[in-house]
Amino acid sequence: MPMLTDPSKKYLPYTAVPFPADYIRQWPNRRTTVAPTWLSTDLRDGNQALVNPMSNTTKLELFREIVRCGFKQIEVAYPSASDQEFQFVRSIIENGEVPDDVSLQIITPARPDLIKRSIDSLAGTRHAIIHLYNAVSPVFREVVFRNTKEQTIELTLNAVKLVKKLTEEETARSGTHFTLNYCLETFSQTEAEFAVELGNRVLETWGKATPNDKIMFNLAATVECAPSNYYADMVEYFSTHINQRDSVIISIHPHNDRGTAVAAAELGLLAGGDRIEGCLLGNGERTGNVDLITLALNMYSQGVSPGLDFSRLAETVALVCRCNEMEIPVRYPYAGQLVFSAFAGTHQDAIKKGLDAQATRWAQVDRSGKGIKYWAMPYIPLDPKDLGYGYENLIRVSSQSGKAGAAYVIKQTMALDLPRKMQVTFYKVVQEKSERIGKEMTAPLIMTAFKQAYCLDSKPIGRLFLHSYRLFPLSPSSREPSSPVSDYSDDPQTLIQSEDAGSLLRFEGDLSVDGIRRTVRGDGLGPVLAILEALRTDLNLELNICESAAQTINADSPSHTKTATFIEMSLAGALPGEPSFGNVWGVGVSSDVSTSKCRAVVSAANQLVGGREFPRPRNVFSPHTISEAGGDNWLQEVKLRTGRLLSRSAERERPDSLNIKTRAQT
Amino acid sequence: MPMLTDPSKKYLPYTAVPFPADYIRQWPNRRTTVAPTWLSTDLRDGNQALVNPMSNTTKLELFREIVRCGFKQIEVAYPSASDQEFQFVRSIIENGEVPDDVSLQIITPARPDLIKRSIDSLAGTRHAIIHLYNAVSPVFREVVFRNTKEQTIELTLNAVKLVKKLTEEETARSGTHFTLNYCLETFSQTEAEFAVELGNRVLETWGKATPNDKIMFNLAATVECAPSNYYADMVEYFSTHINQRDSVIISIHPHNDRGTAVAAAELGLLAGGDRIEGCLLGNGERTGNVDLITLALNMYSQGVSPGLDFSRLAETVALVCRCNEMEIPVRYPYAGQLVFSAFAGTHQDAIKKGLDAQATRWAQVDRSGKGIKYWAMPYIPLDPKDLGYGYENLIRVSSQSGKAGAAYVIKQTMALDLPRKMQVTFYKVVQEKSERIGKEMTAPLIMTAFKQAYCLDSKPIGRLFLHSYRLFPLSPSSREPSSPVSDYSDDPQTLIQSEDAGSLLRFEGDLSVDGIRRTVRGDGLGPVLAILEALRTDLNLELNICESAAQTINADSPSHTKTATFIEMSLAGALPGEPSFGNVWGVGVSSDVSTSKCRAVVSAANQLVGGREFPRPRNVFSPHTISEAGGDNWLQEVKLRTGRLLSRSAERERPDSLNIKTRAQT
Repeated sequence: MPMLTDPSKKYLPYTAVPFPADYIRQWPNRRTTVAPTWLSTDLRDGNQALVNPMSNTTKLELFREIVRCGFKQIEVAYPSASDQEFQFVRSIIENGEVPDDVSLQIITPARPDLIKRSIDSLAGTRHAIIHLYNAVSPVFREVVFRNTKEQTIELTLNAVKLVKKLTEEETARSGTHFTLNYCLETFSQTEAEFAVELGNRVLETWGKATPNDKIMFNLAATVECAPSNYYADMVEYFSTHINQRDSVIISIHPHNDRGTAVAAAELGLLAGGDRIEGCLLGNGERTGNVDLITLALNMYSQGVSPGLDFSRLAETVALVCRCNEMEIPVRYPYAGQLVFSAFAGTHQDAIKKGLDAQATRWAQVDRSGKGIKYWAMPYIPLDPKDLGYGYENLIRVSSQSGKAGAAYVIKQTMALDLPRKMQVTFYKVVQEKSERIGKEMTAPLIMTAFKQAYCLDSKPIGRLFLHSYRLFPLSPSSREPSSPVSDYSDDPQTLIQSEDAGSLLRFEGDLSVDGIRRTVRGDGLGPVLAILEALRTDLNLELNICESAAQTINADSPSHTKTATFIEMSLAGALPGEPSFGNVWGVGVSSDVSTSKCRAVVSAANQLVGGREFPRPRNVFSPHTISEAGGDNWLQEVKLRTGRLLSRSAERERPDSLNIKTRAQT
Repeated sequence: MPMLTDPSKKYLPYTAVPFPADYIRQWPNRRTTVAPTWLSTDLRDGNQALVNPMSNTTKLELFREIVRCGFKQIEVAYPSASDQEFQFVRSIIENGEVPDDVSLQIITPARPDLIKRSIDSLAGTRHAIIHLYNAVSPVFREVVFRNTKEQTIELTLNAVKLVKKLTEEETARSGTHFTLNYCLETFSQTEAEFAVELGNRVLETWGKATPNDKIMFNLAATVECAPSNYYADMVEYFSTHINQRDSVIISIHPHNDRGTAVAAAELGLLAGGDRIEGCLLGNGERTGNVDLITLALNMYSQGVSPGLDFSRLAETVALVCRCNEMEIPVRYPYAGQLVFSAFAGTHQDAIKKGLDAQATRWAQVDRSGKGIKYWAMPYIPLDPKDLGYGYENLIRVSSQSGKAGAAYVIKQTMALDLPRKMQVTFYKVVQEKSERIGKEMTAPLIMTAFKQAYCLDSKPIGRLFLHSYRLFPLSPSSREPSSPVSDYSDDPQTLIQSEDAGSLLRFEGDLSVDGIRRTVRGDGLGPVLAILEALRTDLNLELNICESAAQTINADSPSHTKTATFIEMSLAGALPGEPSFGNVWGVGVSSDVSTSKCRAVVSAANQLVGGREFPRPRNVFSPHTISEAGGDNWLQEVKLRTGRLLSRSAERERPDSLNIKTRAQT
């Protein structure tokens, strides 16, 4: 059976709050600038709603965490409900678990026997709050209790009188200071005028509320059954009509039946709420109470200190989930696993740029001492680091992601800042692989794909592999080699720096071709042209250079500095029947600039050789070094240093300066 | 490191919307009375955010369900992002999957090559919406695109011109009608005046919006980074400042970073929104898009038809979760498993009363033909049946629950309406068991506990077990038995109705005592006094009756009618050293009234016999029937009929009439 086409015949809409026709609401003009008083009811309202309520051992564990997070008011039990509940209150008081600045709250229904037992449970604590409740809405008065309004008031006042009498006796005995928190249960479904009338009668009967010793009214949205703005109207009406407003704390207690508890709390605070009752992660009956973590972090991200600490959010969340045997979805605000992740390419691109720009801006503030290091990040409204998270999950890559995501992962994991055009070509690799395996491309999968695509390994991946090489300066006239300017090995101790750009060089390389080593030789102005000449001469492989870029890695630490060369090449002379590979990119990394260039050429060449046959070796292979020039040992070091490197380089350099155009040099 | 104590040094609060000082907002005065246009972006925005995006097969499955739910506008792809996406659009158009009244929407960034490809994908569909977006907030202009405001406008207008040209060409070719949905991506972080300026320029450039062929503006809260009332202010500013308002559809697209997407959508609608973009169950980047199910059901529960159908909610939810490889938490609004459950005793008590009262009220409407059968249920704002759920989970019982919960389960599962005092004693049994096993007391566990506590089984559970009995009428003077008035067997065919109240009877029972059968006899006015006399005479067991109640089960169906007798008893003569058991309750059920009474007496007696020794049999056992009087065969039948029985009896009878006081009869 479909849903009703005319639900107005079954569901009555909320009744408007009786503001005068010309009344101008105050709450829409306000903004939250200070934190409310927080009341955690995890151990009571939350616990009562659990499929398997907590043991007292578990309650204690959660109590300690709530204290650690900075809550100063904690509802700990429904002591008259069971011995177990009663004993929990006694045990934390008697075992000294309650810090001096923390007030315990307990709940009791408005029934004499239960009130007595509840107050008994609190004997000896420093400050206690008696949360006295009865439901006051029409459906409760008429159906559940069969009371008139006057009977409801009478029942309430009798309970208030008893609480007053018993707490005064207890204060005389043990010195405990008591505050009354009278809860108009189902407030949000109650006639606004009746709620105020009841509140004023309670205020009068309690008779001792002062600005220094206030009474609390808990305006419970026991069931959320109207939009959040209606709840704000209700609170504003109560707040502006209750007597002795300066002696009253308005406590708001939203539930989440319509998925708007957080909004109702925020608007309720604007409308006069001074205090919030809720649970960590919003546990509670049905859809739960308002989530205090979201609420606190919403304030925080608007620059308002909540006075609570969630800087170990993952640990807090894990503890709350364990104690309550609950889970939170991956997209839960702030606490969900995917909240600080972006999968869409445009998002990833923006975050990547945002991180770079912010680093620059913050560095500027550091240098000049002017301005503030404010957070302004596309898509990420709060710095994950403030909650104890890293940035490692900011960008995640699926087949729906764009190039920026894959590039970001390569930057994070391998410290390589791919040129934009190279990002596009590498992204195709990632996308193709992601679609083929039908899964998210995790950072390790992306790294593997990158190393395979660009033949970055200490073992041959492509058909060509440069084991080692030498560069000899040539006199332009003689073209005869002298002593080498570059004799590459990965051992930094034996590294000879080459200052070779523009000078005529001879390249002599130990190259594996399909696993068979041969020596290739060529001359050129600089190492790139020289190795290209060697490939042309000895392999009949004619390649063009299109674009190139270089990046300095670990520039701040000379002994760890590396150069990455990115080079875009194409096949100049495709053989008949040979496919056109278009433009491809290669990459090479080394602490030696020339070596990074030679590696980049071989990396690109591997993508252009296809299945072509090469001429037989003209020269016999003669090993001149045992080190392997194609290795990726540098990665080891980069990985260890990535965290520092990223922040440093981002702070230090403009993104443009990372991609130095080196075409002129080659 | 704790969170910043002064986050205002890092996070800037939202900038107020530039309303004049004396401006009075319109949205807080409004309420939603009609549904917006719904746009599902499950297949695009939702899909893009998935860890593992959907295959096209899965997308098709979800597309069909979205159509079934009643969506008339569906964003189906990002066609320029990949061939797969492009092909999906082609396939649903070419395979006739798109109903005539459904418009397809696709998204494209404001880039010429991608716009062309996107429009190409839609060729031949009846009506298409081009969702053209670019981000326009300061951080995007300055950091991501490095554009001025004027450059941003120019880029936008160029894209709009191209969309206009290409769609007009496509319309000429294939007749497809196109609507432009221009998305101010990051609208909620953009200067309100600039957003309006940009909107007006787009309106002007599009140049053909009319009240009959409107342009759409998507005011995206791409990241939710301010309270929901601020988003409403932004929307109201835009809505009241954009030109040609009657030719403009304001589409709102909230995200849930602050956990207030639903509220932002609701307030945004009040502020001028005509259309909502979101996903089923709120899938999407980070914390997700607004959840359209919650939004629709929020309207529904306020009596406003959303024009969508979620009457098979569990199936819809299961399908969405499967397609998206996601789960929803048990406390998710409307769709979560625990949403229509109450664990707290006070809640359970109120729901139980609410269901009864509502049944009475609705029956009254049915009888009188006056009034409306509106829903007014404590704690349950929406009838679960409207969503295809039953009432079976409304009340669930843990050690924190009260008596009403356990009683409700017994009523649901065994059709027994326990007297209030009996609820209290039975609840102690449940609570004790729940604390001992440390788990939720499920309905089967509660039933088992009930049957054990009250010895309701076809085999002996307690020390006493009534196999069968006869009742003979006695002449008051002679006290000699004549033919039996009641000769009980569970076979309804052989059942003899007894009309015995008040007449002197002889009870002759076949009773097992500790497994040994004996015949017990006693005389009394009515069967209860007669069996009590038999227990006193033959077992030396003297019992008092305190209270009793009877309930008719299946009164509307004579051949299935049963009587339940509840009887409260105490031990009259405790033996020296014997514990006092206080008052206990017994229960008996039978299609025969006398039998239900006799069983109830034995049920209670079993709880009072403790370990006492009984005298040896005075009479030799003589079986007169092979049927077993203590059986629970009736349960079989009750279980089969429970659904119907509950609704019938609830509609038909006032709660009071279910508990007919029968003390006078015994």
